[in-house]
Amino acid sequence: MDSNASRTAKFDELAIAYSEYYKGKIQTIPKVPVRHLSDFSVWYTPGVAAVSLKIAKEIDLSFEMTGKWNNVAIITDGTRVLGIGNVGPEASLPVMEGKALIFNFLGGVNAMPVPIRVRSKDEFIATAKALEPSFGGFNLEDIESPKCFFILEELQKSLSIPAWHDDQLGTACISLAGLFNGLKLTNRKIEEAKIVLMGSGAANIATAFLLFAAGAKPGNILMTDSHGILEPERSDMDKLMLNNPWKYQLAIKTNSERLKGPEENAFKGADVVIAASKPGPGTIKPDWIRSMNTDAIVFALANPNPEIWPDDAIASGAKIVATGRSDFSNQVNNSLVFPGVFRGILDARSKGVNFDVMVSASKEIANFVKDPSPDKIVPSMDEWGLYPTVASAVARKTVELGLARKIDSREGFRKTASEIIEANRKLYLKLLDDKLIKDLPGGGK
Amino acid sequence: MDSNASRTAKFDELAIAYSEYYKGKIQTIPKVPVRHLSDFSVWYTPGVAAVSLKIAKEIDLSFEMTGKWNNVAIITDGTRVLGIGNVGPEASLPVMEGKALIFNFLGGVNAMPVPIRVRSKDEFIATAKALEPSFGGFNLEDIESPKCFFILEELQKSLSIPAWHDDQLGTACISLAGLFNGLKLTNRKIEEAKIVLMGSGAANIATAFLLFAAGAKPGNILMTDSHGILEPERSDMDKLMLNNPWKYQLAIKTNSERLKGPEENAFKGADVVIAASKPGPGTIKPDWIRSMNTDAIVFALANPNPEIWPDDAIASGAKIVATGRSDFSNQVNNSLVFPGVFRGILDARSKGVNFDVMVSASKEIANFVKDPSPDKIVPSMDEWGLYPTVASAVARKTVELGLARKIDSREGFRKTASEIIEANRKLYLKLLDDKLIKDLPGGGK
Repeated sequence: MDSNASRTAKFDELAIAYSEYYKGKIQTIPKVPVRHLSDFSVWYTPGVAAVSLKIAKEIDLSFEMTGKWNNVAIITDGTRVLGIGNVGPEASLPVMEGKALIFNFLGGVNAMPVPIRVRSKDEFIATAKALEPSFGGFNLEDIESPKCFFILEELQKSLSIPAWHDDQLGTACISLAGLFNGLKLTNRKIEEAKIVLMGSGAANIATAFLLFAAGAKPGNILMTDSHGILEPERSDMDKLMLNNPWKYQLAIKTNSERLKGPEENAFKGADVVIAASKPGPGTIKPDWIRSMNTDAIVFALANPNPEIWPDDAIASGAKIVATGRSDFSNQVNNSLVFPGVFRGILDARSKGVNFDVMVSASKEIANFVKDPSPDKIVPSMDEWGLYPTVASAVARKTVELGLARKIDSREGFRKTASEIIEANRKLYLKLLDDKLIKDLPGGGK
Repeated sequence: MDSNASRTAKFDELAIAYSEYYKGKIQTIPKVPVRHLSDFSVWYTPGVAAVSLKIAKEIDLSFEMTGKWNNVAIITDGTRVLGIGNVGPEASLPVMEGKALIFNFLGGVNAMPVPIRVRSKDEFIATAKALEPSFGGFNLEDIESPKCFFILEELQKSLSIPAWHDDQLGTACISLAGLFNGLKLTNRKIEEAKIVLMGSGAANIATAFLLFAAGAKPGNILMTDSHGILEPERSDMDKLMLNNPWKYQLAIKTNSERLKGPEENAFKGADVVIAASKPGPGTIKPDWIRSMNTDAIVFALANPNPEIWPDDAIASGAKIVATGRSDFSNQVNNSLVFPGVFRGILDARSKGVNFDVMVSASKEIANFVKDPSPDKIVPSMDEWGLYPTVASAVARKTVELGLARKIDSREGFRKTASEIIEANRKLYLKLLDDKLIKDLPGGGK
């Protein structure tokens, strides 16, 4: 895999050079015309006071008379950045800017990178709550586990805007989308499937709860971590109850057969493995795949290298394999989810987002693949129609669940989302055409 | 003044209609080219991790490898919004968006409106400190007094980026600029001038300290509030010591003659009155102006109506009159200050800003008026050369004071500021030309 290593080195080198050259990946521009300085009498004082007074009387008008409806804060404390760990808020900024770029590029969202310096989950929560008035939604990112669960739960409970932790919910959502097509292709029903979740971090804990919401039987699910299969008699249950109530709860709810032992025991006879565990290869052994049911479905999502190379998994009997990487078939990629989900919750001015909303997003993503095959269980990022489709499904679902401030039909929401995304893209392409965005130094490589 | 009332009503009406139409005054766009989705391997994972690792080793590289260097948060708790009071963070959003628009339009700054919901000055400070990693500077806005003093002092002390409270520092800075030219035109020296600061709120308390830094004799300054002239024997001194140490300190430092009594007593023989007090007209009586020294300088800065109409002040013997309004000569307007000041502290990657930096900004603004006259003591907003000039003076001053992370010459900083502001304007004008910013509904009025 030397070619992977050299390619990654090249990405590193370019990322450093380009970051020094551009000094930021997003910028702010006016969205209103200023013809003369006297226009500030309307955009600013004295006229603006009338707008403030209207909003003061009816707070929700802030969604209709300001940019709040399209503002998303990408909040992180920098404690678990990509695969590089706790590097702090400043060092997380390039990553959050990249995310903001994708938010804008695919979803037409005004996303702002907001790395924060906080010393505890309580400080994180307090800061996020303080920021609520300015945003239509929060995207949490790269927060260490289990802190991320406490933060997300508290924010979802207390805010009147949606809080989303992409490492949990985005990953769970795209995994479920891929799983829907995988199950279809192998003639399985989610209600009957035996599913192993290998790794019990942010992604798989959320995936477990999402699987429940999608109809999977909790008892048919096995979760594992570095100590083996989760089950109620494990010696660390007391500690889990205190430190990670979500994992504790899953140890009790899943695994109705009360299977014990090392991770590999979980694979025997399983229909599906979703691994979000340690980078491989070698984290999943070919023998473990061989012990699975026929037509096994294997998602090996670790980055930068999957727990097992797709070829090896196929050779060991897997029928469908997905990874997190763009250089293999079936890239299970959050970017297929969050731009559409946020476009939808923003367009519906949603008060929240939950697992039911996520199931409808996953179904939509799965159905967007017109002829699913073992090599194509999820869309690819350049299928532009995906985002308005997901957005409108999400928006409608929040309407049905009573979570929306703005009511519209499925078609109405689709039109809104399409228009916003297309206007945004048109503006961007024009800037590129007119060289108002600088060309890559050296003409790019 | 019926024509003023009807004009203001028209501004109100347009501001409401346009706010509903545009739903926000600023937007986010990419500033890097995305040619293919594979470019995200550089802008996002895996390449971006290399940038994060570099910054993790040297935090200040976040100013050179991300957009932080040009990011300013406009932070408010919405407790004293314009003239309309404590309307809360959501209702302050249209105002902060207007400010962000001016920041961008005149200074090329990526300013983000950040109204926050906090219950105390400590929560405000904690939130601002948490946000520090993402920004090159903070512009505080519309915070009630005396809370604003505590917050600014603590943030200036503890942050490694500049904190600026525009209602204090911006107003003080432009007042001093106007005063420099006023004194010149009336052959006065600041060291000898008798100056009355009418009103002891955010603006005039900052103005007092700035006057000291500019060479005014504290003993020659009189401050007033609704209880009359500030002096050490006033009955509210104990309360002030606790609640507003800044005002307390000024009560002791100023007024060497220990003058007492109602506001009008302060005017007798004064060379200068800077009023930032109750909206007029009628707050300053013509007789009070008549009691001043010959060639009196009167700044009547209350909004929407000055403490005394300029015509009445002139008729009562004032030589030079300034107000906060654009429809009279000599508009003392913060917008002449903050875009250039921030451009300068951002370009120098400054760690802070202080009264000495402000004095150099004020001098630069005053000197920018080539032929000052009683009708022209400050520049007007459309004199575009002002902003890079102020920026470069400010940047150089922070270099001299050891506050800058980035060292350059006066000319170097001027070139940088000009290029940033011009590139930003060019991009904006192109968007307007190409109708990528929507025309005003109904063609504007």
